[in-house]
Parts: sequence; C-alpha cells; structure tokens
Amino acid sequence: MSDPIPPTIEWQDGSVRLIDQRRLPDELAILECRSVGELCEAIRTMAVRGAPALGAAGAMGVALASVTGEPVEDAARRLKATRPTAINLAWGVDRTLAASDPVAEAQRIAAEDVACNRQLGAHGAELLPHGSRVLTHCNAGSLACVGYGTALGVIRAAHEQGRGPSVWVDETRPVLQGARLTAWELSRLGIPFRLVADAMAAGLMAAGEVDAIVVGADRIAANGDVANKVGTYGLAVLAQHHNIPFYVAAPVSTLDRETPTGDDIPVERRAADELAELAGRRIAPAGTEVENRAFDVTPAELVTAYVTEEGVVSRPGDLPI
Amino acid sequence: MSDPIPPTIEWQDGSVRLIDQRRLPDELAILECRSVGELCEAIRTMAVRGAPALGAAGAMGVALASVTGEPVEDAARRLKATRPTAINLAWGVDRTLAASDPVAEAQRIAAEDVACNRQLGAHGAELLPHGSRVLTHCNAGSLACVGYGTALGVIRAAHEQGRGPSVWVDETRPVLQGARLTAWELSRLGIPFRLVADAMAAGLMAAGEVDAIVVGADRIAANGDVANKVGTYGLAVLAQHHNIPFYVAAPVSTLDRETPTGDDIPVERRAADELAELAGRRIAPAGTEVENRAFDVTPAELVTAYVTEEGVVSRPGDLPI
Repeated sequence: MSDPIPPTIEWQDGSVRLIDQRRLPDELAILECRSVGELCEAIRTMAVRGAPALGAAGAMGVALASVTGEPVEDAARRLKATRPTAINLAWGVDRTLAASDPVAEAQRIAAEDVACNRQLGAHGAELLPHGSRVLTHCNAGSLACVGYGTALGVIRAAHEQGRGPSVWVDETRPVLQGARLTAWELSRLGIPFRLVADAMAAGLMAAGEVDAIVVGADRIAANGDVANKVGTYGLAVLAQHHNIPFYVAAPVSTLDRETPTGDDIPVERRAADELAELAGRRIAPAGTEVENRAFDVTPAELVTAYVTEEGVVSRPGDLPI
Repeated sequence: MSDPIPPTIEWQDGSVRLIDQRRLPDELAILECRSVGELCEAIRTMAVRGAPALGAAGAMGVALASVTGEPVEDAARRLKATRPTAINLAWGVDRTLAASDPVAEAQRIAAEDVACNRQLGAHGAELLPHGSRVLTHCNAGSLACVGYGTALGVIRAAHEQGRGPSVWVDETRPVLQGARLTAWELSRLGIPFRLVADAMAAGLMAAGEVDAIVVGADRIAANGDVANKVGTYGLAVLAQHHNIPFYVAAPVSTLDRETPTGDDIPVERRAADELAELAGRRIAPAGTEVENRAFDVTPAELVTAYVTEEGVVSRPGDLPI
C-alpha cells in the first residue's frame, strides 16, 4: 500500500525535491532546489522544516555542493547557519561531509529516517492505551521528517495497531504547523482529530479530556532537557499539574552530547511579521513590537519518557547519548 | 485632557453607537444600532465584546426597546441569549428592566462603568512595583468596557502614577483581541508593550521576564472561581508554577452570587471558522473538526488577589458577593 503522504524531501537526478510546506494545506506543491543557495532559502523560509527533515536537508545540501562543484566546506557552514536550534541539521551536514560519496550518504540518511521513525512509532505506541486522546503540538509528523513522523509516528503506529487513538491538534502559532500540517496529515491518514487554539489545551486537561501528550524535539541536551517548538514547555508544566504523561518522541540523531543542558541550546528568534501579519494581512497595529521566540526548553524532570528508535526510557541518564 | 481612546459604546439620540471592534486595528469605525436586532447581531459577532461593555450594551438594548416600542421583555430575553458566559450582560439588562426610565438608567450604567474602572485601576496599581513587566491576555481594556478598562485599567493607572509598567500582550487566539485591541490601546496610551503568541507566555515566565499577570473576568462565581477568555486558566497554573502573582481585575457587577462554583458557569462554544479561518483565509484543511471553547474557568485557589472598585482582596470569601 502506498503511503498517503509523499516523502518530504528526496534526492532526484542531482537536485533536491521537497514538499513546499508553506503552501500546505492549500496545495501539495513540489519545490526543486538545484543549488545550496536555493536549499538554504527553502530552509530559512520553512518550505522544509522539522528536525529530522532538516537532518536530511543538510545532508542533501552537502550532496548538492558535491555535484554542483560549490565549495563543500562553505556549503556546510551556510547550511548550518540557516536555523540554529535543531541539532539534526548539523548532524546531517557533518555526517555527509565525512562520507566518501556524499550523494549516497544523503540518500542513506533519508532512507534511515523512515525506518527509524517506524521503529520509534512501534515502541511509542505501546505507551498509548486503547482509545487514548492524545494532544500534540506543532508538526512532528511525516512532514517534519523524510516520512512517517516521530510524535505523529507514535500516534500513527497506535492507529495501525488498532489502538484507536484520537488527537487534539494544537494549531501552533505563529506558523500554524498544527492547523496547516498536522491536520493535513491526520486527514490523509484517516486518524480522527480536532483542532484547538494553543491556549485551549489547559482547559481540555482540566476537563479530563487528554490522556497523553506526545511531542517531537529539535534538540535534546545531554541532561535530557528538550528544545522544541515554543509552547511545548507550557504543555509540560500543565501535564505535570494535571498528572498527564508527557512524552518526547525523537530519533537518536536529536540527542546532543556536546550541549550539557537546555540553557546551552540556542533559541532562534524569528521575524516579527510571522506574528504581526497573517497571509500578507497585518493583524496588529503598525509599529507593534514583537517577541518571536521559535522554541522553548522543557526541563528533563517534566518528561515522563523519551521515545527513540532504540526504545522507551524514562530517565534521561538511560538515553543513548 | 481628552481620552486617547473614545468610548466603546454610547447612547445618542435614540440609537446605540459603538466602536466596531471587528474592524480594529485597521480602522476606528462607529457602528450605529437602531433596533434590538441590530444590537444583538453586533454582540454575537463581537463588534462589541468584553464583560463590562456587554453590561452597558445589555442596558442600552433594553433602552432601545423602550424607545422603538419593541416588547421590552422579549428584547431582554433576546439580548441575554446572545452570549451566555459574561454575567454583566444579564446584569445590565435586568437593572435597566427594573428602572422607571430605561434610557436614563442605561446612560447611568455607562457613566458608572468608567468611574468604577478608574477606582479599580487605582487600587490595582498598588500591586505593581515600579518597572513591573505585566502579562495580560485577551483585551480587558477600555474596549472591553465603556472606558478605561479593568486589567488594562490597572496597568494604565500604574502608568499614570509613574510606576513605569511594561506589558507582554498575548495575541489571544482565535479572535486576536490581544494583537488587535490591546496592542491598539497600549499604542494610543504610549505604554510600552511587546506582542507574543499565547504559547510563548510559559517561556517568558521561566526566563524570569514576567513580574505579574493581570486579566479580566467574564464571570466570578460565588466561590471565587473565574470564567475568562480561554487561555486564562493555563496562565494561572503557569503563574503558580513560577511563583508569579496572578490578579483578576473586574467590577463588582461581574460577581455572580447565583452561581455557586465555576463548574456551574456556562462556557460558550463558538463557530469553527474562528479557528479554521484567519483574516478571511482558510488555514486548516477542508473538513477539519474544530473545538472552539471561548472561555475557561480558573479555580479560586490559583488567584492571588481580586481587584474591584471596592479594593483588593486575596480571599474569595472577602469579595463583596
């Protein structure tokens, strides 16, 4: 059976083809990048986003340079500078840089991603009792990876195992990855869901309508602290207050042994317009100052368990870091 | 000195004139309602909103009926049915219904609102040490009242007293009252502020960048539980977790002695389009199911203090209910 969601990013005939996520859910359009510059722009503008997908994008960027004849070290530096928080980007770049055949390595990384997410999903699904109502934030689905997804991979595996999960989808302002991307994926997969504003999650928890929270990660520090889409930390505090399990699903490539704690993770600030404008229309008064932190950091003690392709661990010390 | 923000709602020559808040911040347009039906539609579509403003709107609706010759009891019923959560609406309707001169009573209610908010603001300002960074949610400003504001009245009074407050403005999805209305008011008042997505508030608290949270209320139950714009409850839990004071500012007309606890407060569900569309553009895939609860309930134990025109009380039992 073919996957109802096409691959997020693919190497094809010397170019990188990716789903242009800026245009979802309106249309499923493919963007072709033929140079490192084009790919960097696609990453910066979030045509492609999500930590594992950025790992593959970084890898394919180095592969592109090796094919186009652009200086590879320079390409690596430019790719890494596009977005600072997700560690997978640097991981994909470095792994490909060290390989003798960058094109083959980039394709290997892409193939591994899907296999790894399927394993991760199978492990995580066991955490979800039958009929679980799962809340997720942002998009940690197929579109955040090459395929299948991490947090949504867990939900998808539970669905495939007949556990009948349903999903609360946080819309995830400002870029609306929940409303635009997660809703689109769940629709395609036939998994029941309801969309809510981010600020509605707390009330759902208080009403006993959330059985588990599953999110992805952009980087996990050596002590288990988790950087993820802004809003994740608040959900973790609320989960603890309501005694709801809070799970982080991410491939091992998201673990960063070089970064001791969450305080050491760089948090990207993005442009004011992401908040002050919508679809080209200004929603805040002219001159409004905006604070737009794209990520926040959840301390390890708020994480009930980490789900990776190697299994489920509840203590950060047991992570394969 | 004239107020930089015109009155939200006024009685003039037998009609109700109100700022059409659907068109802010793009333009300051006045909507004139000449019948109870027109006013009910303005309330339902949130051309006028905010608990104290709805109190005045309810009062003026009864006054309108008395002038146009529409059956007054029927008008009262229709006005109360427009929005179920804010108790001030029913309060304004009932008070005007019981008066011998409905027009004079409605105008009295409007005048009292501004005076009451100035008193409330002066009391609340004393809770804010110099240079406080105050987070607020939704709009509990002049636009939520006839004038001056409740939560924003506290901040405005602190500003007028030279306490130099600055404000974190939650954009407040789905209707963006923070981005559209609170930002507009603070701009006009010259009070420094920064706009954030609702899900960013937790990270600001963790970073020590929030000194106090001040919000309004749509209804306060007899036990002190507070119904307010969805997202308020989550902020209260987060405030407790970070040891940040959480203040509720509301006139005594928001207190509802007939409703024992927050569980008894009806929470309005609004249309899916408020979430699935933004600024007229669809943001979620077609067919997306939406849960759109407009309010949530904050238990009294999470409220550090209540600010009313009669003063500041920290125990709900001390409220003038």
